[in-house]
Order: sequence, then structure tokens, then C-alpha cells
Amino acid sequence: MTPWPESSTLTSIGVIRSSRTDLVDTPVQSGLNRTETASLQVLEAFVDGLDGLEEFDYVWLVTWLGKSKRSSAGRAPLRQVPFLQGGPEPRRLGIFATRGPRRVNPIGLSLVKVLAIEGSVIRFSGVDMIDGTTVIDIKPYVTAFDLPAESPRCGWFDDIDLPLGATPASLRARSSERLGADPTEPPT
Amino acid sequence: MTPWPESSTLTSIGVIRSSRTDLVDTPVQSGLNRTETASLQVLEAFVDGLDGLEEFDYVWLVTWLGKSKRSSAGRAPLRQVPFLQGGPEPRRLGIFATRGPRRVNPIGLSLVKVLAIEGSVIRFSGVDMIDGTTVIDIKPYVTAFDLPAESPRCGWFDDIDLPLGATPASLRARSSERLGADPTEPPT
Repeated sequence: MTPWPESSTLTSIGVIRSSRTDLVDTPVQSGLNRTETASLQVLEAFVDGLDGLEEFDYVWLVTWLGKSKRSSAGRAPLRQVPFLQGGPEPRRLGIFATRGPRRVNPIGLSLVKVLAIEGSVIRFSGVDMIDGTTVIDIKPYVTAFDLPAESPRCGWFDDIDLPLGATPASLRARSSERLGADPTEPPT
Repeated sequence: MTPWPESSTLTSIGVIRSSRTDLVDTPVQSGLNRTETASLQVLEAFVDGLDGLEEFDYVWLVTWLGKSKRSSAGRAPLRQVPFLQGGPEPRRLGIFATRGPRRVNPIGLSLVKVLAIEGSVIRFSGVDMIDGTTVIDIKPYVTAFDLPAESPRCGWFDDIDLPLGATPASLRARSSERLGADPTEPPT
């Protein structure tokens, strides 16, 4: 690897408190689980940084997925079959063309809706984080910066079902069902 | 600070090549500079991770702003006047309610439009990165995940002009002009 020219160690700014305690039962994307609520407990040292955030409806939570069992096998493979790919002939994709958690740098990006900010606690809806997930940044959603100029092509996501509330376990079950039904059927 | 329970060291996956070489003349947001083009040189070790990315129109570049002179003064203050705030009475905001580069963890998030992927080089439009910026993740833009369910409130951004191509230098000049014109005038 290219030598990193400086320290790039991260600081935790807070921790997610959600009702999800097992990764296989945790929704894979906040955008597919927009009604479930959870909270972010911001560390006291950083609470002053929240000033003004209550005027935004949506924020990006940048999370550190390093504790994930999903990435415990060492370095993430560069080509993976994403959870959301199912069926008998799932497509293998480059990790940078997926939103999967096993990445070179295990950084997650979740768009969540702010419900309330009470002292050091941000309550939000849109949950794809297991309880205890470390948050490394919060950024306000700004339409002028974060909305594409036109309706964009979204690669393989345009060709698949995106089931609401999908979890690794539910997606695995769905794949098995399809395989069980007719393994010669082409993938849908 | 809370002890970090594990290694959180980052790996560079590539480097931005842009025509911007001085931070004060580098646009502050890719969304305000959507026509300028630049490229991302992905390190050879990670090129396999790009498979399938050419089918997406937009990607998020997650960048490391640690080399920025903007953050050379040590730890970022938790309340700051953002570059985009001008006028005689600029508003001080919590860092997590801004998109400024001096953050607890100096992580940047830029939505860019993919023009072409040629081997290890991604050409894109939407430039807010100085030449040499380190990229730590690439994620495809997925409308189902990244678009709010409704047109959101965007806090103080809703109350200001967002000038196209704005740079720290141009914004500073604008503030000085306003002050010069009539320092008693309320901020616009």
C-alpha cells in the first residue's frame, strides 16, 4: 500500500442506541427501513458541535463498521456478491459499486431523519445500525449539495427488488426460496 | 476521549488529480461547482473494486481532509463560522450543522458525476478537492437510499445565497465588500 503521509486515526463522536443486536437481523439500508427509530448518543465532549442541527430534517451519519462480524475475516474482498443480490445467479460486483459493509475502509453512510435533538441525544428514523455502532461524523443533508442534477442511473440497483426492511437473514431466506422453487430459473 | 476499542487506521484507495492547487481558490462544495472536471487515480491494488461502477451516474467520494491547511491548527473548534456565512453578523454554528472541512474527523463527502472510468482512473465533474486529496471510499449514489422522502428543511443553508463556484477567497471578498458597503446593514 502507498504509505499514508500522516496520522489518520479516527475519534469516536458518539454511539448508536438501536433495538438491533444481531447483524443478521439488522436492516441493510436505512433507506429501506425509514420508519424504525433509534438514537445517537453524542459524547459530552462534542455536544457543542450540534448547535443548529435541529433546523435540518435529514442528516448523514458516517459510521465505523470495523467491529462488524461481517468484516472480521480480515481484508474485505474487492469483488463481492452484495446482500441485496439474490437468486440462483447472483452478480459479483466491485466493492466500490456496492453499499455493503465489508469495505477497504469500513465506513458506513446512512441518511436518517432527525426527529428530535435532546441535549446529547439525537433521535432519528431510518435504521441500519446495530446497537453500539460508532459514529465518526454527522453532516447535515443539504439539497443543493446532495441531490443529483437529474434522475441518475443507479447501476445494478435499478434491476433488482429493494425489499423494505431487508436484513441479511431475510435476503438469505429469499435466495433459498428462489433456489428451492426452481434452480434453473434465471435470476430476477 | 472515550477509548477506541480497536484499530481505526485508514487506508488510502486513491488520489484526486484536479487543477486546484491552493485551498483558498478551491470551490467549497462540489454541488456549487458541478461543471468542472477532475479525476480520481485509484491505486492499482484496488482497481478490481470498481467493477460495475460505470453503470452509475453519480458516486460519493469520501475524502480525507487531514492534510488541509484549514485543519493544521490542531483540533477543530466545535463552533465555527462556515465559509458560506458572510456579512457583518455571520452566524456561528456547531461543526455538525456545517459541511466545513475542519471537523473532529476530517472526512469529506462529495457527490460527483461519473464521466468515464478508464482503467484505474475515474473522470468526474463536481470539484471541491485540491489536487492530491486522499480518497478513502467510493460509494455509488442510490436514489432509494440517498434521497429524502420529502423536500427537507436545510437549516441555515435555506437562508443564504449559495454562489456557484464559491471559494474561501471569493467568499471572503464578498464579506469584505458587504462590510465596506455598509457595516450597519443587517446580514443578508
